Amino acid sequence: MAQRYAQVRAQTVALAAPLSEADCQVQSMPDASPTKWHLAHVTWFFETFVLERFEPGFQPFHPAFRVLFNSYYQAVGDQHPRPQRGLITRPDLNEVRAYRAQVDGRIARLQNGATDTERPGDELLNLMELGLQHEQQHQELLLTDIKHLLACNPLNPIYSPRWPLCTVAPCALEWLNFDAGMTEVGQRGTGFAFDNEYPRHPVWLSAFALANRLVTHGDWLAFMADGGYTTPRWWMSAGWEWVRSQRITAPQYWLPAEGCESNCEWTTFTLHGRMPIDPHTPMVHINWFEADAFARWKGHHEGLPLRLPTEAEWEHAANMQNPCWAEQGNFLDSGALHPLPLASLTDGLMQMGGDVWEWTGSSYLPHPGYQPWEGAVGEYNGKFMVNQMVLKGGSCATPRSHIRASYRNFFPTDARWQFTGLRLARSL
Amino acid sequence: MAQRYAQVRAQTVALAAPLSEADCQVQSMPDASPTKWHLAHVTWFFETFVLERFEPGFQPFHPAFRVLFNSYYQAVGDQHPRPQRGLITRPDLNEVRAYRAQVDGRIARLQNGATDTERPGDELLNLMELGLQHEQQHQELLLTDIKHLLACNPLNPIYSPRWPLCTVAPCALEWLNFDAGMTEVGQRGTGFAFDNEYPRHPVWLSAFALANRLVTHGDWLAFMADGGYTTPRWWMSAGWEWVRSQRITAPQYWLPAEGCESNCEWTTFTLHGRMPIDPHTPMVHINWFEADAFARWKGHHEGLPLRLPTEAEWEHAANMQNPCWAEQGNFLDSGALHPLPLASLTDGLMQMGGDVWEWTGSSYLPHPGYQPWEGAVGEYNGKFMVNQMVLKGGSCATPRSHIRASYRNFFPTDARWQFTGLRLARSL
Amino acid sequence: MAQRYAQVRAQTVALAAPLSEADCQVQSMPDASPTKWHLAHVTWFFETFVLERFEPGFQPFHPAFRVLFNSYYQAVGDQHPRPQRGLITRPDLNEVRAYRAQVDGRIARLQNGATDTERPGDELLNLMELGLQHEQQHQELLLTDIKHLLACNPLNPIYSPRWPLCTVAPCALEWLNFDAGMTEVGQRGTGFAFDNEYPRHPVWLSAFALANRLVTHGDWLAFMADGGYTTPRWWMSAGWEWVRSQRITAPQYWLPAEGCESNCEWTTFTLHGRMPIDPHTPMVHINWFEADAFARWKGHHEGLPLRLPTEAEWEHAANMQNPCWAEQGNFLDSGALHPLPLASLTDGLMQMGGDVWEWTGSSYLPHPGYQPWEGAVGEYNGKFMVNQMVLKGGSCATPRSHIRASYRNFFPTDARWQFTGLRLARSL
Amino acid sequence: MAQRYAQVRAQTVALAAPLSEADCQVQSMPDASPTKWHLAHVTWFFETFVLERFEPGFQPFHPAFRVLFNSYYQAVGDQHPRPQRGLITRPDLNEVRAYRAQVDGRIARLQNGATDTERPGDELLNLMELGLQHEQQHQELLLTDIKHLLACNPLNPIYSPRWPLCTVAPCALEWLNFDAGMTEVGQRGTGFAFDNEYPRHPVWLSAFALANRLVTHGDWLAFMADGGYTTPRWWMSAGWEWVRSQRITAPQYWLPAEGCESNCEWTTFTLHGRMPIDPHTPMVHINWFEADAFARWKGHHEGLPLRLPTEAEWEHAANMQNPCWAEQGNFLDSGALHPLPLASLTDGLMQMGGDVWEWTGSSYLPHPGYQPWEGAVGEYNGKFMVNQMVLKGGSCATPRSHIRASYRNFFPTDARWQFTGLRLARSL
Repeated sequence: MAQRYAQVRAQTVALAAPLSEADCQVQSMPDASPTKWHLAHVTWFFETFVLERFEPGFQPFHPAFRVLFNSYYQAVGDQHPRPQRGLITRPDLNEVRAYRAQVDGRIARLQNGATDTERPGDELLNLMELGLQHEQQHQELLLTDIKHLLACNPLNPIYSPRWPLCTVAPCALEWLNFDAGMTEVGQRGTGFAFDNEYPRHPVWLSAFALANRLVTHGDWLAFMADGGYTTPRWWMSAGWEWVRSQRITAPQYWLPAEGCESNCEWTTFTLHGRMPIDPHTPMVHINWFEADAFARWKGHHEGLPLRLPTEAEWEHAANMQNPCWAEQGNFLDSGALHPLPLASLTDGLMQMGGDVWEWTGSSYLPHPGYQPWEGAVGEYNGKFMVNQMVLKGGSCATPRSHIRASYRNFFPTDARWQFTGLRLARSL
Repeated sequence: MAQRYAQVRAQTVALAAPLSEADCQVQSMPDASPTKWHLAHVTWFFETFVLERFEPGFQPFHPAFRVLFNSYYQAVGDQHPRPQRGLITRPDLNEVRAYRAQVDGRIARLQNGATDTERPGDELLNLMELGLQHEQQHQELLLTDIKHLLACNPLNPIYSPRWPLCTVAPCALEWLNFDAGMTEVGQRGTGFAFDNEYPRHPVWLSAFALANRLVTHGDWLAFMADGGYTTPRWWMSAGWEWVRSQRITAPQYWLPAEGCESNCEWTTFTLHGRMPIDPHTPMVHINWFEADAFARWKGHHEGLPLRLPTEAEWEHAANMQNPCWAEQGNFLDSGALHPLPLASLTDGLMQMGGDVWEWTGSSYLPHPGYQPWEGAVGEYNGKFMVNQMVLKGGSCATPRSHIRASYRNFFPTDARWQFTGLRLARSL
Repeated sequence: MAQRYAQVRAQTVALAAPLSEADCQVQSMPDASPTKWHLAHVTWFFETFVLERFEPGFQPFHPAFRVLFNSYYQAVGDQHPRPQRGLITRPDLNEVRAYRAQVDGRIARLQNGATDTERPGDELLNLMELGLQHEQQHQELLLTDIKHLLACNPLNPIYSPRWPLCTVAPCALEWLNFDAGMTEVGQRGTGFAFDNEYPRHPVWLSAFALANRLVTHGDWLAFMADGGYTTPRWWMSAGWEWVRSQRITAPQYWLPAEGCESNCEWTTFTLHGRMPIDPHTPMVHINWFEADAFARWKGHHEGLPLRLPTEAEWEHAANMQNPCWAEQGNFLDSGALHPLPLASLTDGLMQMGGDVWEWTGSSYLPHPGYQPWEGAVGEYNGKFMVNQMVLKGGSCATPRSHIRASYRNFFPTDARWQFTGLRLARSL
Repeated sequence: MAQRYAQVRAQTVALAAPLSEADCQVQSMPDASPTKWHLAHVTWFFETFVLERFEPGFQPFHPAFRVLFNSYYQAVGDQHPRPQRGLITRPDLNEVRAYRAQVDGRIARLQNGATDTERPGDELLNLMELGLQHEQQHQELLLTDIKHLLACNPLNPIYSPRWPLCTVAPCALEWLNFDAGMTEVGQRGTGFAFDNEYPRHPVWLSAFALANRLVTHGDWLAFMADGGYTTPRWWMSAGWEWVRSQRITAPQYWLPAEGCESNCEWTTFTLHGRMPIDPHTPMVHINWFEADAFARWKGHHEGLPLRLPTEAEWEHAANMQNPCWAEQGNFLDSGALHPLPLASLTDGLMQMGGDVWEWTGSSYLPHPGYQPWEGAVGEYNGKFMVNQMVLKGGSCATPRSHIRASYRNFFPTDARWQFTGLRLARSL
């Protein structure tokens, strides 16, 4: 645990390393948080949920941090207003680093002390593990949030030149069929899982088919060329309202190539700067409305009732096909800050983890019999189970240990700044 | 069909009869529509989807009505902006009545003409039936919308003194248990059903229990007395944000009794005026956030993980218990404009239709294999299957023929102006 | 006084005569009020400020009206929220008519009773006069508000076919010069004037020139053809922000002629329906930002520093030139509901009253030494002396007796629904 | 000029010296700008208006800066959106410092080069002077903006412990009378003045009186104790709307002392941290609505029609009394970063400059005959002459050379984050 703790904590610091103090300070929108806040909040999580409970003679690093870095835990007390996280210029970045170091030392002493006399109790270990899983979730958020900030700058600044997504060889779309029948959904193993992955429970699935690969940037260019963003027919009513009120004409971060007036090439903003669109790579930075509209459009042209997969279909397929998670994807913690080359994926389900989060047609609701954890950490997941859609898989920014079939990511239907894409499905 | 057409159309007119021209004109919020608009729109539905298709030499009553009274059918063309429906003072109410009369005559001729030479085709009959079902849905909306308008008036105007909900005898809450197993959900009969009730499909249910009766106004007073609206613990994060930003302290239409400063009696606004709260009648005019928070609060105090029922649980229970729909409830069209007395309900599931719509824990998503109807009427239901929750049963304002187990009503989680309440459930 | 009271009150009713009950009910925007509200509010003014004070045994017509029809008098008590005036469908129009009739009767008895024993006191007479002046102001608002409402209707309904503005013969723009020197501003006569017209006070004017006529629709078409609405150079910073954020491309009520795609003729909405633009009539329905930008644009092209006149310049010129108010203009109460022909105006200052209100370059601030009236009527004018600009003259909808040099009309810089235009000026 | 250039530029850097990179980055509201942006924008001003015009072979430091650091000059081209100034984390602070240094060098070479061959032309000298005056204006904004940012932080960070305002001895309010007559307003000297201070022009003043001193914090506490913020009577209609919609109960930056529940002492946030209210120091951080309401309240209690002075009254009094500007006040550049002790002011008009900006009752409109400068710098002042009120004098953050009678500061009526207070006046 001590080693794992050190690794995870170091990885967070490494992700912030390419950033200036100013980069770490700014909040580009209410949904995003400053890097400095991420660095402090994940530390607050250990201090509040581990040290405050288990450390003899607990004294907080700074009494005001209890409020400043509380994200949303009502049981802990007040929170600094989320849209104002970026206004907190003091403590500065050095003081947050000192906060991290001090808490790291206290955690180490807590674990050593425990070891001296007795094995650390299960509750301590569980909360330590939760703290690390939590920090890894924020590692992905740190990247998506800083990407959003840098993209606001007309100078197109580069987060890291070492973040090239490898090119992907073209791959024809094929359909994999799944028979109707009972299956089970939810965490089955003994490894860590969040409370929202429980309980594992039976589900009946009607027969369905899944696409073997993700929708690509090239597929999306065809959608746009066919008037995808100007045709209400493909869109949910709320989606069309979003398109019109926000005057949406392209995915997040897309811009016409500079100096171009008509028949433009498109570019997109990446962590290594503004780049031309690569038609073979997975489509990314679309929201649920866009994913849903694309499926309807594509289905019309194929003469098939295409749609997004349900969470249960996706999870069942992932379990059935046993995608070799470790071999795929561009995971965040595969040994380098930049993604690995995509493994050669010649058959079966491809790109089920480590490329982009896949929107599903399922709302984020509790599994039958779901019970949130006891205490304040019960607010971790349970309070958000409404008006959001489930995403499955994991993106190039997702720590590898978070890639599993039962994992439930979730965002509102208009969110685009995460690494989100889609895979097509249909009922048989 | 001709007789049924006449009855349904007359019922709509009867519902508007107590209203002045000014009452019929005004739109009290963007979600509600003026009575005059309802009267015209349901007529537009017949003119556009029946007459335009089947009437020889079709000429519209007024060319501009195609846009003015189109609700949301993109395939038909443009729509007058929804929030501006109340600004259309011309055509006046008399011209809308003339519109209704003219279309009624044309529909009659179409049906007679068809009868002379051949039986009306299935497509015509289906669209006529859809038009009537559609008009009945607007009958309920007309009542909820006019209630919202009248409630904005500090004079507390009365829609109709003949709208007393009978008193309800107190009834202890009991739990009815249901075993785990496969069931089926969706329309099974041969009667009319909307496209969103299809296809009937298998579902696995884990064991659960349902409350025998609805949550009452008295239950809600206890929730409020215990700080229900000031305790974040019971609320979804989005629900708490709604409470705080809207400064919510009570259900829709509730006000403290006049002149009262502390320990106040509450009153509520009804279609027969402002009235004291009756603790034994079903709780009504709460949104999903409130229903969900109540269940969590009640569960905490009972030591049980209480929640809202899922749509499948509710529908399964309704089918299993075979609630005698015709005997219950205060249906809109039970022979009078005002509700009937509640039947004596001494055992089993009670109040499953005709009292209040019951919020479920299920999102409004397509049934597996769902296909919208062909053509413009395919926009009837399918475009709204996101960010809404399912309601089951039917209210005192719901036409009786709309009360069936597979019926799927749906509203966003913050909507309160419909006749919406809840029944408790729990997993076993 | 009794005869004048009857005439003014009858004129208000006559203005509402062409309108249906629905027309009288609706509020098209927060700044406008329903006709029914105008009819009631001006009656409330007499009941509250005259009867409540002088009527023995005063009993209100309806206790709730004290709040419902109070516009903004804090000293009287609460007010129904302004944006919700259109939601009050009860009392209906008949009851408001009965309210008017009852108050008219009580006012008559009050005046007769006073006459029997003694002459009505000055205070009563003053308040009666104020009530009539107030009602006349609302006569103009009634017309501008109903015009705004009808213009929201794509059917382009007609208020009255008898509202033709006569054509105006083309007239070359000439400059009238005024020497520098002392002048006086403010009410000098013995007739009625509002508190804000006092005290008459000395002002030094530098030499200036005024245009002999108003800016015309034809002048405005030249401004638009030269990119007036797309060139930031002509606009105040706040004006340009208004243009961009509201996507303004033309004056209020202007639309391209139907079916026209490029090089369009423009039409405008009038009280007698949608009409082609007449290039010789005075420009109307522009706000201060537009008037100011036009002057700057015109000045650039003329090589002169053109601007709006100040209030003092305008008032001084009006007093100097002694425009024959009674001979000019299209006054509201010149004996018919529709405007009179424009008098032949061959020299001197023309169109100084009875055509359009003229924006000035002066903020609406108190005259030096200004004191609001005593009591609640002190809120009549004094509370609005910030963030508004003065308009002088009077429009085709202004009662003739309100056309005088010292009259101070005022609106915010973005208001366009009044009959507002401009005359050019420059410093010498 | 070279020496003065160096001094002004160094003063700006000195003001930013106490701030971290994060402090310099953040924008706390759309009206405020980041310190880093101020540092760059004032440099952009020299580069754009001086170097681009006069430097042989001009090459910009960075082409993108032309847009990034353009505040509002439409004639120069596009501007980065004002509310997003804080999102520009690159260039970082070091690069902005390099930008300053490079431009400083080029300016020096330009001046030296000019000196070698010929005296720098008047136009160059004028633009250099304008650039320095402009930079000095931003010195004050830098302080008010950073104060607003730091005040958003619950930790109450200190800008500089060396910013104590000296205590002020209590001083009774006395009235100084001024006779009616002609005066002149506007710049009369030969020193620098902005275009909006011209032309000097005659004005007639009615007799008036001015208070000898500013309204104090103690005066304000009396206003609040008498229900100042809860009594509509004292407020303009728009001011009362502001109070209610923003739920205002105290001046900007005021908070009850910590832990206090009733009968609280108030504290305020200053550049040297959160402090108790000192009743004898000048009231500061109120907007025009508050200043205006205070005068009306005070006048009611004194039985005098108190009001704000007009700009002309204030300027006339300042010129008549010849306040010894250099002896008074806490000027920004009086030789130290922190304010000087207040001079002993025993008679006459006191605190006319160097304490707080004084709200007047005059709108910010052009002087008669005003002409903006030629070219892009004509946008400096002229585009803002609407919907703002004039402030006179100068605050503790105002560079001393900006304290003169004709100087016209201006802000909207709801702005509170500047160092703004008031002096009472009345008509005689």
